[in-house]
Amino acid sequence: MKPSIPRGTRDFGPADMLKRRFIFDTIRRNFELFGFQPIETPSMENISTLTGKYGEEGDQLIFKILNSRMHESKNKEELKKEFELSLESARNSEELTERALRYDLTVPFARYVVMHQNEITFPFKRYQMQPVWRADKPQKGRYREFYQCDADVIGSDSLLNELELMMMIDKSFSELSIGITLKINNRKILAGIAEMIGEPDKIIDITVAIDKVDKIGLEGVNKELASKGVSQAAIDKLQPLFETVNSNEAMLSYLKIFLAESEIGKKGLEEMEFILSSITGRLSDKTKLEFDVTLARGLNYYTGTIFEVKARQGMSSSILGGGRYDDLTGIFGLKGMSGVGISFGIDRIYDVLEENGFPGNLENKSHTRLLFLNFDTGSEVEYLDRATLLRSKKITCEIYPHSTKKIDKQFDYAEKNKIPFVCKMVIEEGKELYEVKEIGHKEWQRFDLAALEEKLKN
Amino acid sequence: MKPSIPRGTRDFGPADMLKRRFIFDTIRRNFELFGFQPIETPSMENISTLTGKYGEEGDQLIFKILNSRMHESKNKEELKKEFELSLESARNSEELTERALRYDLTVPFARYVVMHQNEITFPFKRYQMQPVWRADKPQKGRYREFYQCDADVIGSDSLLNELELMMMIDKSFSELSIGITLKINNRKILAGIAEMIGEPDKIIDITVAIDKVDKIGLEGVNKELASKGVSQAAIDKLQPLFETVNSNEAMLSYLKIFLAESEIGKKGLEEMEFILSSITGRLSDKTKLEFDVTLARGLNYYTGTIFEVKARQGMSSSILGGGRYDDLTGIFGLKGMSGVGISFGIDRIYDVLEENGFPGNLENKSHTRLLFLNFDTGSEVEYLDRATLLRSKKITCEIYPHSTKKIDKQFDYAEKNKIPFVCKMVIEEGKELYEVKEIGHKEWQRFDLAALEEKLKN
Repeated sequence: MKPSIPRGTRDFGPADMLKRRFIFDTIRRNFELFGFQPIETPSMENISTLTGKYGEEGDQLIFKILNSRMHESKNKEELKKEFELSLESARNSEELTERALRYDLTVPFARYVVMHQNEITFPFKRYQMQPVWRADKPQKGRYREFYQCDADVIGSDSLLNELELMMMIDKSFSELSIGITLKINNRKILAGIAEMIGEPDKIIDITVAIDKVDKIGLEGVNKELASKGVSQAAIDKLQPLFETVNSNEAMLSYLKIFLAESEIGKKGLEEMEFILSSITGRLSDKTKLEFDVTLARGLNYYTGTIFEVKARQGMSSSILGGGRYDDLTGIFGLKGMSGVGISFGIDRIYDVLEENGFPGNLENKSHTRLLFLNFDTGSEVEYLDRATLLRSKKITCEIYPHSTKKIDKQFDYAEKNKIPFVCKMVIEEGKELYEVKEIGHKEWQRFDLAALEEKLKN
Repeated sequence: MKPSIPRGTRDFGPADMLKRRFIFDTIRRNFELFGFQPIETPSMENISTLTGKYGEEGDQLIFKILNSRMHESKNKEELKKEFELSLESARNSEELTERALRYDLTVPFARYVVMHQNEITFPFKRYQMQPVWRADKPQKGRYREFYQCDADVIGSDSLLNELELMMMIDKSFSELSIGITLKINNRKILAGIAEMIGEPDKIIDITVAIDKVDKIGLEGVNKELASKGVSQAAIDKLQPLFETVNSNEAMLSYLKIFLAESEIGKKGLEEMEFILSSITGRLSDKTKLEFDVTLARGLNYYTGTIFEVKARQGMSSSILGGGRYDDLTGIFGLKGMSGVGISFGIDRIYDVLEENGFPGNLENKSHTRLLFLNFDTGSEVEYLDRATLLRSKKITCEIYPHSTKKIDKQFDYAEKNKIPFVCKMVIEEGKELYEVKEIGHKEWQRFDLAALEEKLKN
């Protein structure tokens, strides 16, 4: 009977947790510095809240939970009868399952805003860091349970929000020691392009196709466009957009001509120009800003600016995505709420840092600073008082829980747990002293409490 | 289409989050000060990991997840066929559901220890703070999704662990500003009692019954005992144990006579005596220690010390439970691992603090310290630089995202969000100054950056 965990899920041990917490704490600290406020929503939502929001493919990846009255049925016949009854009912499988695990944090956030609209002061800046679940085929870097870290501003169409988000992205990745390319585009520019090549109704097909240029190449994109019924003339007109341009300014200039006759396209360009000019000089030199007209992610609800971040070293997949949406809460009946948000991909950020190295030598750190060696049952309880003293100085310490003469075992415990100091209690001329050894060093040193405190803080 | 959330689940807004985080941070800080290391396990476990561990009643409360291949079936007929197929299979409903949401953190911890036994250095001190799910009937104070905060030491039978846990309980509740009664008992004493009244085989019935004395009274207990077939002679012998004793010492003395002929009973008393004498003088005066021979919680796997905590003011239900178990990992094939652990009931602790008041005026706090008022699109982007400066000093601040002449709306935003200071940018003789007003005060004051930093830190 060897226990295991479900495919696509993970255990995190103490060493993983230290590294994961570094990422979470960095992002949370920046969310709060920028005035975003935390909320949490339940892991389960009503199925009706989730279905129809993620496209047909997404809907199939929602994990559904069996109704509890099904649980209570004890034998096969009862289960079968209940299931058949639920099938007879008009609402299909609703009697079998009414709840599901959340698929992302965006739809629950929209649901939250609509449900709590009377308590909220808009614009509402919220952040949320919680796991989500997807019944996806597990593979390297793709899990069935993973965290999302989202920050959104809802109830404000000011582009200042975009600028603040970009500065927050820049500051966060800089503190995570990850050099990034921050890609930016605008859904209105994409709409203008579709208009100008004469295929305004095919905007979704066009953007889905050009978004893949990194993966399938230009030829692949053109093939896909043709297969979707985009005319050869339109495809020809599109080609110059894929040519490499040297700078964001060059891209702007080019598009000003390309989109001169499209109202929506010009609006998008105006937004882009404001953002590019305002953000200039306000990002660190670790961040490369790239206006990428082929960027089209999450097209279903984005209506303005689109963001994506990739690490400049290592993994090529995106580690952050986001954008502006004009009608996220409309699906739940609250119209006219424009918002913009971003989502950090914690697990991919972790993978990037594993590849490129965590800053601050996190691999060799532990939570505990000092281990009291424990030789003698008689004085065991006195360790408690020494430990209490250290803990009152906020020094994390532990007492080896067994009293044992085997000092090797206790040293081994400290080493395996990466505890940097071990300690024996000494009384010298009536004074309580600590005899301390740093793991990996030979000598023992005696300290009084104040000196020990100083030593352990370094 | 009014959105809602499933019964027994909750949304937590920014104000709730601030209070919940105070509780989580206090407990986490103490777990780490005492040398416990964090782990996290997946929300989903294989059903075989969970079933049979919580008794018949508990098993029915496990939330089961529909297999994803069920998701992919699109119509009634397919669903029905799949379900019938799964019913035909020998393993009952296994084809319908193979995964379930965790019911507590103890069983996943046991599973973790067995799976990772070769990476772990024992004794292993771990903590875990994650949600659990139970398909219980929702009612006041009972939720279908709630957090548990567990700390356990596994691989050590030393009573020093019990002492450390008690000191950690004491320190944590003291920092949470909750005066407590810490109840303690020992499963071996209960076994000794069952032996001495001549009903050693009825230990479970006896302890389940006497555990209820607070709820159903002595008469109710005796009725239940009789109904379970405990002899009248045995019940008579039990009565003196329910008499009020003045002190833990008096209870010890009495039991020394009562259990004089029971080996297991004497072992339990010896452990209890060591713990009581060692802990004396080591707990704060906010904690009342009570040796309660009727305490019997979680009997299924506890084998030694049993803990329970109740608040001395407000709610009478328990806010912490725990105890020693000699064979938790045996269910997964790893024998001979003694452990002891405790579990903080976060949601009930929250309710106690709501009733008695959170310390530190948390109700009126916010994450953000300062709001930049925003009147003028022209200089809007310059706010970004001022905000960047403050954030580099770790001051949480935000810019009102709309540029608007309506100052009232901006003040309202600050007040509703409990942001204590609002600010205008001023340039005076070429120097960048901040004109600041504290909400609820009349005057505006001018500061340079250093002075503002000082002001906001207070």
